[in-house]
Amino acid sequence: MTPDEFRAAGHELVDWIADFRATIGDRPVEATVAPGDVRGSMSPTPPVGPGDFGSLLADVDRVVMPGMTHVQHPRYFGFFPANVSLSSTLGDLMSTGLGALGISWQSSPALTEVEEVVCDWMRQLVGLSDAWHGTINDTASTSALVALLCARERATGSSQLRGGLQAEAAALRVYASPQSHSSVQKAALLAGYGLDNVVWVDVDGRNDLDPEALRRAIDTDIAAGRVPAAVIASVGSTTCTAIDPVAAIVEVCAPYGVWVHVDAAMAGTAMLVPELRGLWDGVEGADSISWNPHKWMGAALDCSMYLVRDVDALVGTMSTNASYLASTQDGAVTQYRDWGLPLGRRFRALKLWFQLGLDGVGSIQERVRRDLANAAWLAEVVAATPQWTVVAPVRLQTVCVRHEPAGLADDALDHHTLAWARAVNRSGAAYLTPARLDGGWMVRVSIGAESTTRADVEAVWAAMRSAAEES
Amino acid sequence: MTPDEFRAAGHELVDWIADFRATIGDRPVEATVAPGDVRGSMSPTPPVGPGDFGSLLADVDRVVMPGMTHVQHPRYFGFFPANVSLSSTLGDLMSTGLGALGISWQSSPALTEVEEVVCDWMRQLVGLSDAWHGTINDTASTSALVALLCARERATGSSQLRGGLQAEAAALRVYASPQSHSSVQKAALLAGYGLDNVVWVDVDGRNDLDPEALRRAIDTDIAAGRVPAAVIASVGSTTCTAIDPVAAIVEVCAPYGVWVHVDAAMAGTAMLVPELRGLWDGVEGADSISWNPHKWMGAALDCSMYLVRDVDALVGTMSTNASYLASTQDGAVTQYRDWGLPLGRRFRALKLWFQLGLDGVGSIQERVRRDLANAAWLAEVVAATPQWTVVAPVRLQTVCVRHEPAGLADDALDHHTLAWARAVNRSGAAYLTPARLDGGWMVRVSIGAESTTRADVEAVWAAMRSAAEES
Repeated sequence: MTPDEFRAAGHELVDWIADFRATIGDRPVEATVAPGDVRGSMSPTPPVGPGDFGSLLADVDRVVMPGMTHVQHPRYFGFFPANVSLSSTLGDLMSTGLGALGISWQSSPALTEVEEVVCDWMRQLVGLSDAWHGTINDTASTSALVALLCARERATGSSQLRGGLQAEAAALRVYASPQSHSSVQKAALLAGYGLDNVVWVDVDGRNDLDPEALRRAIDTDIAAGRVPAAVIASVGSTTCTAIDPVAAIVEVCAPYGVWVHVDAAMAGTAMLVPELRGLWDGVEGADSISWNPHKWMGAALDCSMYLVRDVDALVGTMSTNASYLASTQDGAVTQYRDWGLPLGRRFRALKLWFQLGLDGVGSIQERVRRDLANAAWLAEVVAATPQWTVVAPVRLQTVCVRHEPAGLADDALDHHTLAWARAVNRSGAAYLTPARLDGGWMVRVSIGAESTTRADVEAVWAAMRSAAEES
Repeated sequence: MTPDEFRAAGHELVDWIADFRATIGDRPVEATVAPGDVRGSMSPTPPVGPGDFGSLLADVDRVVMPGMTHVQHPRYFGFFPANVSLSSTLGDLMSTGLGALGISWQSSPALTEVEEVVCDWMRQLVGLSDAWHGTINDTASTSALVALLCARERATGSSQLRGGLQAEAAALRVYASPQSHSSVQKAALLAGYGLDNVVWVDVDGRNDLDPEALRRAIDTDIAAGRVPAAVIASVGSTTCTAIDPVAAIVEVCAPYGVWVHVDAAMAGTAMLVPELRGLWDGVEGADSISWNPHKWMGAALDCSMYLVRDVDALVGTMSTNASYLASTQDGAVTQYRDWGLPLGRRFRALKLWFQLGLDGVGSIQERVRRDLANAAWLAEVVAATPQWTVVAPVRLQTVCVRHEPAGLADDALDHHTLAWARAVNRSGAAYLTPARLDGGWMVRVSIGAESTTRADVEAVWAAMRSAAEES
């Protein structure tokens, strides 16, 4: 494709996206397809091409659009917010258009140094001290894996440079709340700890990790000759935005050198608002933090901040070449290939720069406060409505609810819960995610799409009542 | 940012990119900055915003452009090609603009099923049988890690579901050529094998892994009670595009169930051309393949195909939830979160679809053949020129050369080699990567930027002669 062909098609595509985003609220939120429908609407053999752009756009309309669950929709309340602000979309396009190759400082000094500066901006924006250094990973799953690999190497004195984890005598242990994200267990398994060494620590009535239970678990392990290696503190857990007490966890871990990883994938964005920073009080004593600006904040997926205090521990685990280390430690240049798993990286910092530069952090803070107020409002009206219950404290922007008609319990109640949530989703009017909490099903209303207003929250509440009370 | 603001800025950015790509040949290839220059040209504190798009574009021109090494430049001959075709740029923009959330089939059926279909197109295009199933990772580093994790779990009967690698008695071993990519050793270390268990197998005179040496290494390990777990076969190694003999490696490994991972990150694209497929003869007997369309082919970074035959082995290692497995195995839907490391994924298949649909595979095949012919031409003129040597067989599009003036050897020759390569790069006229081979430095001329013509190859050769013979 020539630059002039790109120019013409690019204009057409920009218009397509602008129109799509302007009218997204008119579409059903949930995809309307059944398994295999999208696949069945495509040719099983590759296109021979060359083809014209208009036909391709028509194919996208025909094949892709019915299969989209629209997370940019103002009445998307599923999973967690997954905002892609249009400002960050421009930054991402700039990245692709520049076609930079991020495999070393030399291969793209701008990619490296802009990422350094933008990560430092992000650090400042959430009120962390300058002891922290950041890089951008794809997702919090990767960050959890990186953290547990660093913890493994710290606990074993760099076993990977000798006979590996298989040559270690004592069992290494990882501690987390049962409310921690599935990626935590996955990371522990992939890092080689083994399922038997993932210790689920008791939680309190709010589903926050109990630091005294953690202390007991660690003491028991040490007495048995096992080696505590890492704790994951979830700040804003996926199911019910539980907030593990970071300060207390850090205090328990400090005497043993246990790695503390703070998973604030969702809640990191909340820390843009100073009055919420008490939620991760103690974070300065942790070893690593993950925060996904591609969730609530609105940087296009994939954009997961990974912040560490000890860069040498990170580079020592991720670098396989001592000569790389030297160039990092002499302070002249940063080699991000030694800060994570992949060698090559996109110029991801541009999407953060464009969002911050064009929208400004003030507008993001406004949205965060708007969403918190909307969640508080919804919680209040739900709690005030007969047969409806808010089943978990509202710590951030997620409201966990259940409709509990008289006489329904256990399996019958679960069946009812899943049925009305399904009815709301099938209607296309709004999208919710049911989840299990304390042994039963409930429905999460996760507020925070960029375009969600109070009217949209009122609309989902009306749809919920209608679906639940009439079913 | 509103859709209308996006429309206006998007048009401006599309024009900026079209102009940039149309005039890229007029820019110096290598970045002209020193360490810290880019960082120093940015504000150390975050922008307060909101700002206007024109000012931001001016900032990019001022801050970013001097720090770009232009891998899209027609006289970029460094590392490996890292093409970002403008057609795939549009596909990537479509992905960001749609703002899909790929965390499950349900969260975006289109993202999942288009990836399934496009990966199958890619499989067909390189002549693999339908026993293979593909997914898109970020990079080949990640694919190598995934492969070695799967190999670890196969060799231990899923140790991660018990006490982890640390509870295993026998040492697991990984075999590779010393020419294998640095990501192979990194993956082995991160997967827990340990450096002592990475076995470097002897190579032949072309730097291809010697299968008989592999057989001896495996036999020795088995006799000593160690467990052979995986072999990495590099097809198109980074330094000199060595081609490990896949068929012979597969034959050696088959009796022991050793996992064979074929790293064809660069050379996978060559297989789009039927006459080159002999280079990975035997690949049907391997367990996994990595191939980066974001290199020679031209899909925007990051886009690394990971192909496997045994999907259950992949899902069994990457899934942490047995209920996910069920939905995969019943054939109704694919859950790509269980095919790799991260939970969330971008809609990456669109950039492949757009490139194939708009440019057509025929134009990519033409480029591959053009680049091979250019490499053959360069090798011929270098070999025919006094004091110049082609130091490795030209298997694909990379020509490894040395200028060897009479009387220079060892350190003095290395110094000369690095000096003239540096002079070419500093001139801005072309970009080359020096590398060590067989104990000395040489210079790689890696041909294959999308816009590189014979005239550009003639130009780099003139620049090389000028720099080397006049220094």
